[in-house]
Amino acid sequence: MRAQADERHPDLRAALEHLLSAGGKRVRPTIVLLVGNMLGGNPDRLVTLSAAVELLHTATLVHDDLIDGALLRRGTPTLNARWSPAATVLTGDFVFARAAKLAAETESVPVMKYFAETLAVIVNGELTQMFTSKGIANRDNYYQRIYAKTASLFETCAYTAAMISNAGDETCETMRQFGYNTGMAFQIVDDILDFTSDEGTVGKPVGSDLLNGLITLPALYYIESHPGNSDVDELAEGGYADPQRVARLVAAVRASDSIQKAMGEANRFVDKALAALSAFPAGNEREALIELARYIVDREL
Amino acid sequence: MRAQADERHPDLRAALEHLLSAGGKRVRPTIVLLVGNMLGGNPDRLVTLSAAVELLHTATLVHDDLIDGALLRRGTPTLNARWSPAATVLTGDFVFARAAKLAAETESVPVMKYFAETLAVIVNGELTQMFTSKGIANRDNYYQRIYAKTASLFETCAYTAAMISNAGDETCETMRQFGYNTGMAFQIVDDILDFTSDEGTVGKPVGSDLLNGLITLPALYYIESHPGNSDVDELAEGGYADPQRVARLVAAVRASDSIQKAMGEANRFVDKALAALSAFPAGNEREALIELARYIVDREL
Repeated sequence: MRAQADERHPDLRAALEHLLSAGGKRVRPTIVLLVGNMLGGNPDRLVTLSAAVELLHTATLVHDDLIDGALLRRGTPTLNARWSPAATVLTGDFVFARAAKLAAETESVPVMKYFAETLAVIVNGELTQMFTSKGIANRDNYYQRIYAKTASLFETCAYTAAMISNAGDETCETMRQFGYNTGMAFQIVDDILDFTSDEGTVGKPVGSDLLNGLITLPALYYIESHPGNSDVDELAEGGYADPQRVARLVAAVRASDSIQKAMGEANRFVDKALAALSAFPAGNEREALIELARYIVDREL
Repeated sequence: MRAQADERHPDLRAALEHLLSAGGKRVRPTIVLLVGNMLGGNPDRLVTLSAAVELLHTATLVHDDLIDGALLRRGTPTLNARWSPAATVLTGDFVFARAAKLAAETESVPVMKYFAETLAVIVNGELTQMFTSKGIANRDNYYQRIYAKTASLFETCAYTAAMISNAGDETCETMRQFGYNTGMAFQIVDDILDFTSDEGTVGKPVGSDLLNGLITLPALYYIESHPGNSDVDELAEGGYADPQRVARLVAAVRASDSIQKAMGEANRFVDKALAALSAFPAGNEREALIELARYIVDREL
C-alpha cells in the first residue's frame, strides 16, 4: 500500500503515510488472504488483491470523513482535519486510482468488474443516506444501508479471493455468503459500539450516529419498544440535533435490552457465516476464518 | 452513458442527466471510435471504451469544478452550483465507479491498467498544481501540467483503442503519439481561448486562468518578452488576485504576438499528430482523424 505513493510528490506521500499509519483492523485484507490461502490461491495475487480492497476502503473513508466533517478516525486526526477540502477530495481520488490499478494487477477481468460495481454500491448507499430524511426509524433502510456501507465490500473480498484462487462457482458463492454475513455482523457491532464504547476506545464521540440523525439497530429496537417516549417521538421532528436529548436517549438505549437484541442479530449473521465455512475441510485457514468471524462479535466485550 | 444511472435513485439520475445534457465536444470518445474503426476493432467494445473515457473525464470535471468553485461549465451551471459539496463529491465518485465498470467491460486487463494509471496521473497533476505557488511562470511546469490534465487521457484514448483493436505494438505506439500530440495541442488552444474568447462562447469568464494564478502558454510568452512590465513583475507577488491588473494583462496579451506564438506551438503538436497518421493507408477514418486534429487548432478562429 505504501508503495502506491512512490515517486509522487512529498505532500501526497505524507498524506498517504498519515492515512496508513492510522492503522485500523485490516479486516478486509485479512479475509482476502485467509479465504485465498484456504482455497490454494496464488500468494502474490492475493496480496495484490488485499492491498486493492484496503485502499478502496481507505479512499471511501477519506471522502466520507470529509463529507461528515469528522475530525477523528481511529483516534487520530482525519485528513480533512489537517488538509483543505480540495486536497482531501483529490487525495481520495488518488487512492481510488491506486486501488483500481492494484485490482487490475490481479489480471482478472471479473475481479475488476466486482470492484467497480462495489464502489458504485458503496457510493450509491451514501447518496441514498444523504437524501433520506434524518431521524426516521426504518428497518429496511437500515439493512440496505449497512449492506451498501460494509457488507458489500466484505462480500467482494471473500468472493473475489475465491475467484482468483480458481475456485468453482459453488465455492465462490459460499465464500460470498461468508463475506456478506461477516460484513453485516461487523457493521451491526460497529453500530452497537457507537452506543456502548467510551470515546477513548472507539476514537470518536459516543452516540455520533444518533447525533447525525442516523437510526441504527440498537436505536431501532429501543424505538420499536418505546412508542410513547417523548425523546423517541421527537427524533423524526429534528430531536436528533439536540445533544441533551440524544445523551438521554443513548443512556436509555444502553440501559435497555436493545443492545442485547442487536448483539443477538449480529450473532445470527455470524452463525450464518460459520455455517458457510462448515462446507470446507478443517485446517489452519478455516480455523482462522472461524476466529475472525467470532472476533467480529466478541470485540464488543 | 445515460444507462449508467439506471435503477439508482432519482436524484442521482437527475445529476447524471444534468452532467450529460451539458454536452461538450466529446472529442475523447471520437478519438476512440475513429482510431478503433481505422484499425478494424470490434464496434461494441469501442463504444464501451468510448463511454468509459468520457465518463472518466466527466468525473474529473465534477471534482475539479467543486475544487475550483466554478459555477459554469460549457455555459450551464456546474453540479456544485446546484448541489451541496458532499453530494457533488459522491456523484463524482459514482461516475468514477461507472467509468471503471465500463473499462472492465472492455474485457481487457491492459486497458484497465492504463485507465487506472491515467486517473492517477490526472489527479496527481491537480494536486501538484494545488501545492505549486500561484502566479509563477515556469515553462516546464506548464507542459507537465497540460500533459497530466489533458494529453494523458487523449493518449490513453488513442492507445487503448488501438490495443482493443488488436493492433501490433508499433501501431499502438504510433496511435499513442497521435493521442499525446492532439491532447497537448487541445489544451494549448483551450488556454488560448481563455484569453481570446468572450464569456458567451467559452462558457466561463475570460482570463479565469490568470485570475486563478495559473500562467498558461500565452501568458508565458508575454512574460518572457516583457521582463520590465510592472503587471508582469507583480504576478508572482499575488498580482493575479487583482482583477484590474489581470484585465490589463489579458488585454496586453491579446494585443501582443503571444497568442500567435502559442498557436504556433499548438500547430507544431498537430503537425506531429498528422505525421503519426501518415503511416496509415488513406481512408475515411484516417481522413476523419486528420480533420479532428485540424479542428483542434481551427476552432479558435
